[in-house]
Amino acid sequence: MPVSDAHRIVTRDLDTPPRLLLGPGPSNAHPRVLRAMSNRQVGHLDPTFVALMNEVQELLRYAWQTDNQVTIPVSGTGSAAMEAAVANTVEPGQSVLVGCNGYFGERMVDMASRYGAVVHRMDAPWGTSFDLDTIRKAMETARPSVLGLVHAETSTGARQPLEGVRALCDEFDCLLVVDTVTSLAGVKLFIDEWGIDAAYSGTQKCLSCPPGLGPLTLNQKVIDRLARRTKPVPNWYLDMSLVGKYWGSARTYHHTAPINMNYGIREALRLVAEEGLEARWQRHEDNARMFWNGLEAIGLSCHVDEEIRLPSLTTVRVPDGVDSGRVARTLLNEYNIEIAGGLGQLAGKVWRVGMMGFNSRPENVRLLLAAMEDVLSKETAA
Amino acid sequence: MPVSDAHRIVTRDLDTPPRLLLGPGPSNAHPRVLRAMSNRQVGHLDPTFVALMNEVQELLRYAWQTDNQVTIPVSGTGSAAMEAAVANTVEPGQSVLVGCNGYFGERMVDMASRYGAVVHRMDAPWGTSFDLDTIRKAMETARPSVLGLVHAETSTGARQPLEGVRALCDEFDCLLVVDTVTSLAGVKLFIDEWGIDAAYSGTQKCLSCPPGLGPLTLNQKVIDRLARRTKPVPNWYLDMSLVGKYWGSARTYHHTAPINMNYGIREALRLVAEEGLEARWQRHEDNARMFWNGLEAIGLSCHVDEEIRLPSLTTVRVPDGVDSGRVARTLLNEYNIEIAGGLGQLAGKVWRVGMMGFNSRPENVRLLLAAMEDVLSKETAA
Repeated sequence: MPVSDAHRIVTRDLDTPPRLLLGPGPSNAHPRVLRAMSNRQVGHLDPTFVALMNEVQELLRYAWQTDNQVTIPVSGTGSAAMEAAVANTVEPGQSVLVGCNGYFGERMVDMASRYGAVVHRMDAPWGTSFDLDTIRKAMETARPSVLGLVHAETSTGARQPLEGVRALCDEFDCLLVVDTVTSLAGVKLFIDEWGIDAAYSGTQKCLSCPPGLGPLTLNQKVIDRLARRTKPVPNWYLDMSLVGKYWGSARTYHHTAPINMNYGIREALRLVAEEGLEARWQRHEDNARMFWNGLEAIGLSCHVDEEIRLPSLTTVRVPDGVDSGRVARTLLNEYNIEIAGGLGQLAGKVWRVGMMGFNSRPENVRLLLAAMEDVLSKETAA
Repeated sequence: MPVSDAHRIVTRDLDTPPRLLLGPGPSNAHPRVLRAMSNRQVGHLDPTFVALMNEVQELLRYAWQTDNQVTIPVSGTGSAAMEAAVANTVEPGQSVLVGCNGYFGERMVDMASRYGAVVHRMDAPWGTSFDLDTIRKAMETARPSVLGLVHAETSTGARQPLEGVRALCDEFDCLLVVDTVTSLAGVKLFIDEWGIDAAYSGTQKCLSCPPGLGPLTLNQKVIDRLARRTKPVPNWYLDMSLVGKYWGSARTYHHTAPINMNYGIREALRLVAEEGLEARWQRHEDNARMFWNGLEAIGLSCHVDEEIRLPSLTTVRVPDGVDSGRVARTLLNEYNIEIAGGLGQLAGKVWRVGMMGFNSRPENVRLLLAAMEDVLSKETAA
C-alpha cells in the first residue's frame, strides 16, 4: 500500500518571536529552567530519576508549606491537576459547594458535576471574594462534603482570604479543596497552617516553568477517604491511589513521567528555594504596587479592591470608548508584549496583566506602563 | 506567620548520566527535538502558536496516514491519550471487547470499566496476537459497541495484524480503537486505510521526543457519536468536544497547552516528514533484523514469532539460570545502557529491548550486542 504525501508539509526551523509574556500565563520560563529541560534524558525508573522525583516532591512541599506525603507534579497541565483534585475528593452523590466568583470556580462546578456530585453554587460578582459569614450560610444550606474555593482567581485578579475557613470545614466535616494556580510561589500561601486538604497549581505561572505539569498536594485525610472508596476513581490516569504508588516508595510503573518537564520543574523549584518564599512573595508585592501606582499615574484603575488584589495578576479597567482587543493586539504586534483581555463577566471590560515569577521585575513594570501609555494615547487621539 | 524551612533542601545543578535508552521507552530524544524545546515561549493563543498547532496536526496526520480532522497531541503522556480514546468512545452500559494479550490490553479493560462499560475480554498468551476468526467469535458473543486492540504491545513485542478487522467491525456496527504507542512512526500503520476509528500514541517511542504529549486521532464517526451523547464525557480535561474547540478553528480556551513540548513534537514530526515514512519503517525493520540475527549469533532467542515480531520492540528470552534483573542493572551501571525486564506473564522471562526512532541505528545494535555478550559471559562464568 503506498504512503500518501497529502499531509507531508514542508516546514521551517522553529523561530518564535521574543515575546514578553505579561498575560495571565504562561509567563516566560526562567532561562535556567529552559536549560535544565534540555538535559540528557534518563528512563522514568532510572535511579537518578527516582532521586530527582524525591527532590521535586521535597521542594514542592517547601513552596506550598506542607508536609503532605502526596505532593507531586501531575503529568498534565494545571487543568489536569485541578481534575485530579476533584476526581480524588468528590464521590458520586456527595454535596459539593463551590465559590463561583470567576471562570475557575465555574469550571470546578462543571468538573464536580461530571463526577456525579450534587453541586451547590455560592455566587459573587467577578472580582470580589467571599467572607466567612457568607461561606457559613452557604454551608448551612449545602451541608457539603467538599468545599471548593479559588485562592487566586486568574480570571479576575481577586484573592480569596482563607484564614478561618478550616474551622468552618471542621464544623461541617468537609474537605477544603483550593485552586492555587496563580498563587503558588508568588502569593502568601500556607497549605498546612490554613488547613487546606487538597490544592493544585500549574507550572507556567509564578514558578516560571513552561506549562506541562500540574502540582498537586493531598493530605492524609484525602488519602484515607480514597482508600475507603468501594468503587475506583472513575479516571485511571489521575487516580492518585495508582499514581501515588509511582511517586511513593513502591515506584510501581503507572505511566511514563514527562522526564524533561520534571527537569524543568526541579530547576524552577530550586530557584524558589534559593530566593526564599518570603523574599519571593515580597518581590511580587513590591513590583505589583509599582505597577498599580504607575497605572494610576497614567489615568488607569484596577478592577479589584486593593485589600484582596492579587500581586501576581492585575485586572486593569478598560477606559470608556477604548477597544480592549485592539490595544492587546497592538501591544503584541508592535511591542512584543502579551497581555490578555477579560473573560465572562469581565469580557471587554478589563485587561489581565500577570507579573509572575521571573517576570515580576521592575523593568517589566516600566516597559509595560510605557507601552500602554503610548498605545492608549494613540488610541484616544484616533 | 513564619515560613518553615523544613523542606528547603539544597540541591546541585542537574547532571544526568549519558544513558543510551534501549528499553521499552522513553527512547532518547533526537538532539534537534531537545534544541527546539528550548525555544523562546509564546502564549498558547499567540498567532505564532496557533500556526504551530496547525503544522503539528498536519504532520501528525502524515505520520498516522489519516485525514481525520481531530488529530492532536493530548496535553499529557501516552496514557492520557489512551484514557482520552476510551473516555470519548465508551459510554456507560455499552459492551466493550478488549484483546488481552499483554499489559496494555489489561489496562484498557481497567479504563473501560471505570467508564461504566460492560467489558468482555478476549484472552491470549502474552507474545501472541489474535486472528480474524478468534475476533469474530468473540464479537458474536460480546456484540460490542467498541473493539479495543493493541497494534504494538510494548509489554510483549507482538504486533496485532489489523487488515480485515474493519470489515468485522462494520458487520457488528462497532468502533475500532487501537493502541499505536509503540508503532507510530516506526512500524507500518495506515489509520484510514485500515478503518481505525480512534488511535492513540506517545511521543517518547518511535517519535524520539521526550514523554509529555499523547497523540490522539478520532474520525468523524467518533465525533458524531460524541455529539449525540446526552451526558457529557465524565472527564473534563480529556473531553474532546471541548479540547477540539481549542485545536479546531474556534480556538476557544480550554487549558494552557504545554508550549515547549509542542515545540518538541513539531520538530520530531518534521524529522519523520523529512525521512519519509517508508524509509523510516524500513530503517526500523533493517536494524531490528540486524539485532535479531546478532542475538542468534550469541545464542539468544526472541520470544515472539518472527511473523508478528515488532521491529520497534524485541522481547529477548532470558537463558535458564540467568538473573534478568542483575543483567539489566549491570548494563545500566557499567555500560550506561537501559533495557527493561518483562512484565506480568513475562516477568523474569524476557528482556525488553527498544530500538525506536533516533535510537534505531546500526551502532546501537552493535553496542548492545557486544555489551550483552560481555555481561552474559561473566554471568555464566560466575
